[in-house]
Amino acid sequence: MFLWLRYAAILCSGGVTSSYIRKSQASIDMPLELFPSPLGFNAPEQVHITQGDDVGRSMIISWVTPIKPHPNEVTYWEDINGKHGHKHKISAKFTSYRYYNYTSGYIHHATIRRLKYNTKYIYELGKHNTTRRFHFTAPLQVGPDVPYTFGVMGDLGQTYDSNQTFKHYVANPKGQAVLFLGDLSYADHYEFHDNMRCDSWGKFIEKSVAYQPWIWTAGNHEIDNAPEIEENTPFKPYLHRYHVPYKASQSTSPLWYSIKRASAYIIVLSSYSAYGTYTPQYNWFQQEFPKVNRAETPWLIVLLHSPWYNSNNYHYMEGESMRVMFESWFVQNKVDLVFAGHVHSYEGSERISNMKYNITSNLSTPVKDASAPVYITIGDGGNIAGLANN
Amino acid sequence: MFLWLRYAAILCSGGVTSSYIRKSQASIDMPLELFPSPLGFNAPEQVHITQGDDVGRSMIISWVTPIKPHPNEVTYWEDINGKHGHKHKISAKFTSYRYYNYTSGYIHHATIRRLKYNTKYIYELGKHNTTRRFHFTAPLQVGPDVPYTFGVMGDLGQTYDSNQTFKHYVANPKGQAVLFLGDLSYADHYEFHDNMRCDSWGKFIEKSVAYQPWIWTAGNHEIDNAPEIEENTPFKPYLHRYHVPYKASQSTSPLWYSIKRASAYIIVLSSYSAYGTYTPQYNWFQQEFPKVNRAETPWLIVLLHSPWYNSNNYHYMEGESMRVMFESWFVQNKVDLVFAGHVHSYEGSERISNMKYNITSNLSTPVKDASAPVYITIGDGGNIAGLANN
Repeated sequence: MFLWLRYAAILCSGGVTSSYIRKSQASIDMPLELFPSPLGFNAPEQVHITQGDDVGRSMIISWVTPIKPHPNEVTYWEDINGKHGHKHKISAKFTSYRYYNYTSGYIHHATIRRLKYNTKYIYELGKHNTTRRFHFTAPLQVGPDVPYTFGVMGDLGQTYDSNQTFKHYVANPKGQAVLFLGDLSYADHYEFHDNMRCDSWGKFIEKSVAYQPWIWTAGNHEIDNAPEIEENTPFKPYLHRYHVPYKASQSTSPLWYSIKRASAYIIVLSSYSAYGTYTPQYNWFQQEFPKVNRAETPWLIVLLHSPWYNSNNYHYMEGESMRVMFESWFVQNKVDLVFAGHVHSYEGSERISNMKYNITSNLSTPVKDASAPVYITIGDGGNIAGLANN
Repeated sequence: MFLWLRYAAILCSGGVTSSYIRKSQASIDMPLELFPSPLGFNAPEQVHITQGDDVGRSMIISWVTPIKPHPNEVTYWEDINGKHGHKHKISAKFTSYRYYNYTSGYIHHATIRRLKYNTKYIYELGKHNTTRRFHFTAPLQVGPDVPYTFGVMGDLGQTYDSNQTFKHYVANPKGQAVLFLGDLSYADHYEFHDNMRCDSWGKFIEKSVAYQPWIWTAGNHEIDNAPEIEENTPFKPYLHRYHVPYKASQSTSPLWYSIKRASAYIIVLSSYSAYGTYTPQYNWFQQEFPKVNRAETPWLIVLLHSPWYNSNNYHYMEGESMRVMFESWFVQNKVDLVFAGHVHSYEGSERISNMKYNITSNLSTPVKDASAPVYITIGDGGNIAGLANN
């Protein structure tokens, strides 16, 4: 069984999707007051977890302490039907960054390793009156028949509409992990890309992402390149805040990597990094396909931000540059599904490809192709839709 | 008057162009013994200059000292018909880097500013018995009728064939500056990308580039990304060795920038950096066109490494991903010439464009377009060809 959920993403700029809102203005962001910090001095906040290796036996636990870097430990133990296992403790690495006039808190990242498959874990952060306790369940061992339910989400933001989407997902007990397609907080819509909005977003999504892994893809709103304020390091806030297990797939950048989870081999690409021939992303991606064993992971899924097939005016043809680079690889290697965000409507394609074009062929129309992936663009509010609907 | 020279580039791998060499093997590299260092302890070597601002009133002087960073000064003065002007002295910034088992010498970069137009300058490096003296001529003020002769070169390498090409250029008194289209030393063909070959290349080209500016474009052989030896910083050796005046054109990376020289506005793009929508290179490039004043610089020229129009099998369609991104901008803004390297043959296009394609149009054949640039690929040995021949 392999059920897919589709979850809405209501952006804080651009198109508006809820039928009862007619104005072309975006839904407005929730005020900062709606994202309170946990009580207590230096209490851990913005807790989020993601898969920490290639097979799901590790988990990266991340959190922010606003004032001091310590305490810096994660305490964790197995929970077997309420019976607590031996307590383990590990220290995190922590980092912080400046972005124009903003200074981040201490951002901690700890990787818990050697998890037992299909086992519930409890973990604690902070100490004394700031102790906070969370839990997650390690997945079953990767295999072709492992039942698993992913939520798929992109372009979330932190508007009142985002909140509806998010609450909808949290209320559904089926989702075990989220494939996130980029565009997280939309902090860059604020003057100087006010990174307080990265913090508020971290608090906003904690209710889900502290308990189940979200698999991260970078979108254009994560670039945060702003020469006018001398912020010229692309993806700076994102890369400090969201760690991913890129080295486990021999990637050299957190912006592209792969993991296996349940029955899926999931490849994350970066629409906003170099992908031309000979570039690091290109070289890495080329070496991914021989590693896929369809007997182990029958599902081969690619996540990226900017869709290749998109019939909307908005962002029309923006993905073309990456499509002409990689589409033939997708088809040759029979990728099943390509999820993209960016365009704020839902769209699913038939299995099509468009690879016959060369300078003289004049063959540039998408054609039905049984080896081609289904392309799904997820950028709008929506409700649960099974895979079969596409 | 605006004469263009085309100069050969014989690569040390791949295709071979000289008609008298029939074997498919590449011409071999000259041995290191043919690139002696100048005499004397710590003598400055690998001297190279490039334009240091957007209008040609500055020059970046770069050199390497192998053992110690000092002396670190450039002494320079005007030479007016043999009469020496007042001596000026400035200090350079210096850097060095490690690449796997190689440690570079001290790489110095000094920018001489406030040059007088159309004036010969002499400059000296080193001291006592290691003093070395060079000269260059600052160009005329940028304007529509300024006579100037550029050499155009790419994919040079350091083979015996490279040497023929290079000697041919040096022997021609007309060339005043070189537009270099990427692929410099081909050091990456050696085990561990032996950066001694960057040093030898620096010595190889000194005879020209110490006396006239070479305008640098990065090619794929400058990427030097090698995860197998944990070298994961793209363009590391290139960026340490070759400085360009990117900030003068509000660029945030030395890999893309623009300059004006004589009657030309020259835009350098990076085929191997991110160029998708919203990326730094994309955002910067978009803001370039409004800055071009055709009354001042009637020639609008783009340099890049991977050609867009290329009828060769070798590297066929590699430039497609960048073409679909930017071609419409080239045509709308009436770019005159696009020079590319990479493919080791000479090819010139008619004025064509191919921009009508969208997912449903099926219009994907290049058509004649009076607003489109001429695309010229320079990658092989050749001889002088005026612009009118294309």
